[in-house]
Amino acid sequence: MTNLLDNISNPKDLRKLNPNQLPQLAKELRTFIIDIVATKEGHLGASLGVVELTIALHYLFETPDDLLVWDVGHQAYGHKILTGRKKVFHTNRQFGGIAGFPARKESEFDTFGVGHSSTSISAALGMAIASNLKNETERHHIAVIGDASIASGMAFEALNHAGVSNANLLIILNDNAIGIDPAVGALKEYLTKVKSDKKLAAQNNIIKALNFDYSGPIDGHDLPKILKELERLKSVKGPKFLHVITTKGKGLKKAEEDQVTYHAPGKFDKISGERIKKEKSLYTKYQDVFGQTIVELADKNSRIVGITPAMLTGSSLKLMLEKHPNRTFDVGIAEQHAVTLAAGMATQNLIPYCNIYSTFLQRAYDQVIHDVALQNLPVIFCLDRAGLVGEDGATHHGVFDLAYLRLIPNLIIFAPRNEIELRNILYTAQLGLQKPIAIRYPRGTGNIIDWKQPFEKIEIAKSICLQKGNKTAILSVGTIAKNVSEALELVDSPSDFSHFDMRFVKPLDENSLHKIAKTHQNIYTIEDGTVKGGFGTAILEFMADNKYKNKVEILGIPDNFIEHGSVTKLQQTLNLDVDSLISRFNRA
Amino acid sequence: MTNLLDNISNPKDLRKLNPNQLPQLAKELRTFIIDIVATKEGHLGASLGVVELTIALHYLFETPDDLLVWDVGHQAYGHKILTGRKKVFHTNRQFGGIAGFPARKESEFDTFGVGHSSTSISAALGMAIASNLKNETERHHIAVIGDASIASGMAFEALNHAGVSNANLLIILNDNAIGIDPAVGALKEYLTKVKSDKKLAAQNNIIKALNFDYSGPIDGHDLPKILKELERLKSVKGPKFLHVITTKGKGLKKAEEDQVTYHAPGKFDKISGERIKKEKSLYTKYQDVFGQTIVELADKNSRIVGITPAMLTGSSLKLMLEKHPNRTFDVGIAEQHAVTLAAGMATQNLIPYCNIYSTFLQRAYDQVIHDVALQNLPVIFCLDRAGLVGEDGATHHGVFDLAYLRLIPNLIIFAPRNEIELRNILYTAQLGLQKPIAIRYPRGTGNIIDWKQPFEKIEIAKSICLQKGNKTAILSVGTIAKNVSEALELVDSPSDFSHFDMRFVKPLDENSLHKIAKTHQNIYTIEDGTVKGGFGTAILEFMADNKYKNKVEILGIPDNFIEHGSVTKLQQTLNLDVDSLISRFNRA
Repeated sequence: MTNLLDNISNPKDLRKLNPNQLPQLAKELRTFIIDIVATKEGHLGASLGVVELTIALHYLFETPDDLLVWDVGHQAYGHKILTGRKKVFHTNRQFGGIAGFPARKESEFDTFGVGHSSTSISAALGMAIASNLKNETERHHIAVIGDASIASGMAFEALNHAGVSNANLLIILNDNAIGIDPAVGALKEYLTKVKSDKKLAAQNNIIKALNFDYSGPIDGHDLPKILKELERLKSVKGPKFLHVITTKGKGLKKAEEDQVTYHAPGKFDKISGERIKKEKSLYTKYQDVFGQTIVELADKNSRIVGITPAMLTGSSLKLMLEKHPNRTFDVGIAEQHAVTLAAGMATQNLIPYCNIYSTFLQRAYDQVIHDVALQNLPVIFCLDRAGLVGEDGATHHGVFDLAYLRLIPNLIIFAPRNEIELRNILYTAQLGLQKPIAIRYPRGTGNIIDWKQPFEKIEIAKSICLQKGNKTAILSVGTIAKNVSEALELVDSPSDFSHFDMRFVKPLDENSLHKIAKTHQNIYTIEDGTVKGGFGTAILEFMADNKYKNKVEILGIPDNFIEHGSVTKLQQTLNLDVDSLISRFNRA
Repeated sequence: MTNLLDNISNPKDLRKLNPNQLPQLAKELRTFIIDIVATKEGHLGASLGVVELTIALHYLFETPDDLLVWDVGHQAYGHKILTGRKKVFHTNRQFGGIAGFPARKESEFDTFGVGHSSTSISAALGMAIASNLKNETERHHIAVIGDASIASGMAFEALNHAGVSNANLLIILNDNAIGIDPAVGALKEYLTKVKSDKKLAAQNNIIKALNFDYSGPIDGHDLPKILKELERLKSVKGPKFLHVITTKGKGLKKAEEDQVTYHAPGKFDKISGERIKKEKSLYTKYQDVFGQTIVELADKNSRIVGITPAMLTGSSLKLMLEKHPNRTFDVGIAEQHAVTLAAGMATQNLIPYCNIYSTFLQRAYDQVIHDVALQNLPVIFCLDRAGLVGEDGATHHGVFDLAYLRLIPNLIIFAPRNEIELRNILYTAQLGLQKPIAIRYPRGTGNIIDWKQPFEKIEIAKSICLQKGNKTAILSVGTIAKNVSEALELVDSPSDFSHFDMRFVKPLDENSLHKIAKTHQNIYTIEDGTVKGGFGTAILEFMADNKYKNKVEILGIPDNFIEHGSVTKLQQTLNLDVDSLISRFNRA
């Protein structure tokens, strides 16, 4: 049997095949994805689930003239492979390689850059309206969205608009009943009922009630069926909705059985699917420092509740769910609701720990300002994946948080230097701050084996002096302190340098800053956040307010979007690695 | 007939009445609201529409032990009057008086501060979950939300969660088919059908499909019916949903007939309802400069489209709707969708003007970053109501935008000094900037009668020198320039001062800044945005980057939430008025 995939560089090649060859191609595409992700790592399960759908879409529609938008983009590996990136697919998510998500600058087939969920319907509707205005009425516009993503607010906003438009828009619900963790919520329960009850599906269901031509549910792994239904839908005008049932991880038994783990399994054996165990790290992930600590705290304090928008596993809040299920809430991909829910709870004297990835808190910015800070409600925001996140790239780096949070009145902002600091601020936060607090910490592990020390209360707005010198002060926040410490061991004149872990971006430790300004000629600030408006800028504001004239240099993330690559590699390119810091400090 | 309202200071008094006295009370309450709002101004229509509902809720439920959350709060005047604020109601929205929206610090009956829409279900659900955890299972939790607000994404997120909770939550849909402008969208069309088709309502409707105990629709002005249904619902456990039909402006004929105008009609005759015409201003509102200009531009450029999330009238985009209905989109209260829709349109070479009030853009922060700026799509954001908005107060001031936008890579930020500048930047934006731009301008009128001059292109990152001096440079952005100009006419040594309208907060006019730094000892920056992270801070960053040592003082909105009051009064309290600036500059 010939290898069909070998001869496919783009959808035009694909369209030369006979329909009955497509199941064979699906098999090959699946194998191709498995082979490469097994060694290069990446998001596996979602892409395996939509192999047939991906082939069918590119086979029947005239991409890239017809416009196809993938929601989130975890599932777009097959799409990338079929649209000219087969030969570079092994560079997926690596520095300089292709991105893990669709990206406009990478290919004309990537019509809309994604990463955060639930944007696809809005984007595709915008494209469809544009085609109408340009009288390109034959063009098709397709959004493929998962059942977890469609439950998020902005997707509903888009459905609500699309339903009253005359846009030539096809929404395909890729229903596998799971996001990264199993999907939750009333809509998910409804969809589950629809799947098992044809009569309910045929009735005036939610989607039909919103004016869509609804069809399905159909088996998303049955190529002939999908082809037939898509062919039919091509001639249906206006907003239409196809409900497709798929299995996440389809085609790799292990991945089908453990869909949460195989969302992004790391390296694995491509035949058995068995994960290749990494050497167990001596160190604990920050997310687990959070997870283990909140369980300890919740054991003793019944007012504590935990909230996550669909990141039970990623945040390690699942540890609390296991121990305190009635006080742990996975609200689905619903950052806005998560924050205001926490605010509502705080009015009733609960102590909500609202754990949201730094980059996703952008989705709930208004709620942080309007519902939490304005009312000064003591919600505890735990912002995981802050700073550079590595391979997920530009859509996911949590580098804006310090700057966008710092301008919010009433909010305390803390960035722990290490696991013990994270542990202690989590402890401190539930002692009664009378204010909201944001605690932001990075992806990955720390460096302290025995971080589980007795709790110590942290004094608000109190910095720590890590090294005392007499000429130049380095002010750091967060875990980048480690790079500073290592650099200061290797600079030419170590005794010139002081190093302060400022800890609090807001309120600043003004007492210490006055002393620092009076005793050090030069000041460097360093953070893994934007140089525009962040911690370093806060120091500039302090210096200006107090009329200090010290030379201040701000080190951090420059004013452009940062691509994907390992954190180590990215730090090097941004001159935030140890070697770069040594050179920089030697020039001080 | 006795005056019932006279004897009601709080809901306990109300509960002493017989049910058959309540219609009379409703009449009195309506008259009370009309009498005061007729002379003191405020939001009229929404509160008139819920008079019966307000009375019924406080009559049957044990507020404040039972927790009542009003969505948005435009409709809460009756609530305020019945809960201890009757005697101060004439101070509504005035500086030092009661707030126009529910506010926790004002009353224990105001369980959750509101202003922005669609937060009530999340907040009430948080409260209800808290009661469950505290075993206070008899407590009721009620969210009253309008049909425009419930269509917004975060309300759906909350419904999706509430439907699978066992929370003792009652959601009351106050369905009057209008927000500020008439409601739009597929959900609204569905609700309209439900109202006229009992069978559809009785069927497995959208709300039932989301697991709610749905009842209604019932007439929201029929007190006996409401009382009966609420009494029944008190004993229904779990999430429940009552659909109530009301008429916005009920009880004042003019207000019922013209609901858009009478949302907030200004002064009017309390008997006839006739609006008392203000002396016609010589000047044009900034919103109309936008509205008139975009029509002119759209007349000539067919690629231009206009988008508003439910602010057709307030933004004056309705002028474009009248002229170019197929290119003008009111997407409902859906800021997130509005922004990503615009991004989708921009990928297809349309030129989207996305008009969103500054304070509401907070709702779409992630979309601005992730969908627009990251892809460098040339969306034109028109941020109306930027800076201090006056009587709407803390929830509505648009004072954070400069700071939260400035940290976003690729984004151009412009603040016009006057109407001509706004007009010209709107013109410039559609010439092809290759980047997104945010144009922010205030509520109210400008000061130039003949602003409609021939279009002139504005050079990006180019400031204007308004006055040349030799000692102190004042750098302003936006319309606050006027206060500066007036102050500089009255300072002791006018020739000491230069005044630059910097226009662009990003990118800065670095050429001019170098010259300014070299020729002026002292620099003041002034903006109607936060001093944390805003324009002034950008100047500090420039000075630090370039190692200038000039004294820089930043004038703007301090780091706390600003209450309601006239803009003039607020500027005085913040030392941004002309007199304060004179004193400040004289000390330079």
